Amino acid sequence: MYAFRSVTGKENSLIKLVSALQSSAKARRENGLFVLEGLRICDDAADNGIRFDKLIVSETALLKYDEYIGRFAENSEDCVRVPDSIFKKISDTSSPQGIIAVCKSGSTPSYGIDRSGRYIVLENVADPSNLGAVSRTAEALGASGIILTAGGCDPYSPKALRASMGTLLRVPVIVTDNLPELISQNGLKAYACVVDRNASPISSVTFSDGCAVMIGNEANGLTESAVNAATQSVTIPMQGRAESLNAAAAAAIAVWEMMRQ
Amino acid sequence: MYAFRSVTGKENSLIKLVSALQSSAKARRENGLFVLEGLRICDDAADNGIRFDKLIVSETALLKYDEYIGRFAENSEDCVRVPDSIFKKISDTSSPQGIIAVCKSGSTPSYGIDRSGRYIVLENVADPSNLGAVSRTAEALGASGIILTAGGCDPYSPKALRASMGTLLRVPVIVTDNLPELISQNGLKAYACVVDRNASPISSVTFSDGCAVMIGNEANGLTESAVNAATQSVTIPMQGRAESLNAAAAAAIAVWEMMRQ
Repeated sequence: MYAFRSVTGKENSLIKLVSALQSSAKARRENGLFVLEGLRICDDAADNGIRFDKLIVSETALLKYDEYIGRFAENSEDCVRVPDSIFKKISDTSSPQGIIAVCKSGSTPSYGIDRSGRYIVLENVADPSNLGAVSRTAEALGASGIILTAGGCDPYSPKALRASMGTLLRVPVIVTDNLPELISQNGLKAYACVVDRNASPISSVTFSDGCAVMIGNEANGLTESAVNAATQSVTIPMQGRAESLNAAAAAAIAVWEMMRQ
Repeated sequence: MYAFRSVTGKENSLIKLVSALQSSAKARRENGLFVLEGLRICDDAADNGIRFDKLIVSETALLKYDEYIGRFAENSEDCVRVPDSIFKKISDTSSPQGIIAVCKSGSTPSYGIDRSGRYIVLENVADPSNLGAVSRTAEALGASGIILTAGGCDPYSPKALRASMGTLLRVPVIVTDNLPELISQNGLKAYACVVDRNASPISSVTFSDGCAVMIGNEANGLTESAVNAATQSVTIPMQGRAESLNAAAAAAIAVWEMMRQ
């Protein structure tokens, strides 16, 4: 049996910290920590060699998932049990399973750009569900990784991690605050995916190694500086009154085209 | 100036009805009504000839969006103004614009199957964000429409309408409680999109008019009866540890492949 210390007061500093990590990218950045919630994603993380700084489980989960929790406890520096009522307050979901791991951001691998890789770039994409979906697409279709800009959604956001089904813990993610520089320094052929009938259809591009397709923010598309940094602008031709595709749907088509050749 | 009657009590039957329509597919079905919330989607609906049974606006919106509201009022049987505090209680968003239209389900067009069309089928897809994203994809890529099963997400769900950016009011949507029968009666060539390394890659299929690609539920995939009703099982080949794509991402790739030929 592992030693679980008991925390019962909701004003406890750990409880307050976890609440902040769940809701705030700033808190995650400042503390160098992020949260994994739920059995499945904790299991994935442990499989991927990510150590837990803290494991926090509800009294109910401790009984219900004892086998998993034994394994998670072995992977954790510190184990805490809390009443179900307290767990509810730190959970990011409406029906919590009762399992949270707090991890150091530095415990996930740090990636550089593979100059012969094929990347999907999300510039200032804001919705964590879109980032999560793109991560699943990137892994499934075999892209080399995801390049994010610092102004976009935090890859450690609990919603992004959940929507990614844990794939964000495995897919190489590179965050940059200077996208044009990153592209030129690594010699990537970059394709700006734009809504413009005059741009080349993405299906007419012959992709080769050392490339990236860039998708812009949900409301505003790519910035001018990203478009200027691209080798070529490409488009997913659209019919009728359509104004744009959902960012994750556009990314799915873009990665599919980039990887098919 | 249009006559806006004033409603101030939150127990008013209209307020209770709108709250129910926002949150419950059953309430929408039983009342034959659905809700559009926000300036953009109300504007789209009016453009598409959808009459409003009721227009409900907050006091703030009445001043701020007076031009739009004048036009919406002309399109509405009944106009109601409510205090901002009451509007907050019936809104489905955290920062409401203060505009809601209640419409009769019968005011949207009713569609049959075009036997030479190309359809995307969502079998029991549960997440309204996925349905909304697929609707944008279907319109943008020129699919003939979306076929939904009765066990899936309600196309009148406020979240689905919002995620669709209004496209669900324009794209033909057909809801069926017997998918295999609908396929066979209309002579559609149906392709079951499955996670199965032995199925044919979707890129190897030559699609022709009178076809449908079927995507299954987020957690469980297609039912056996849907797979059995298909002419052929197809797959989006996946790499590494990937277990599946997000349903809307899979649908984007499927519609892209179906429409490219």
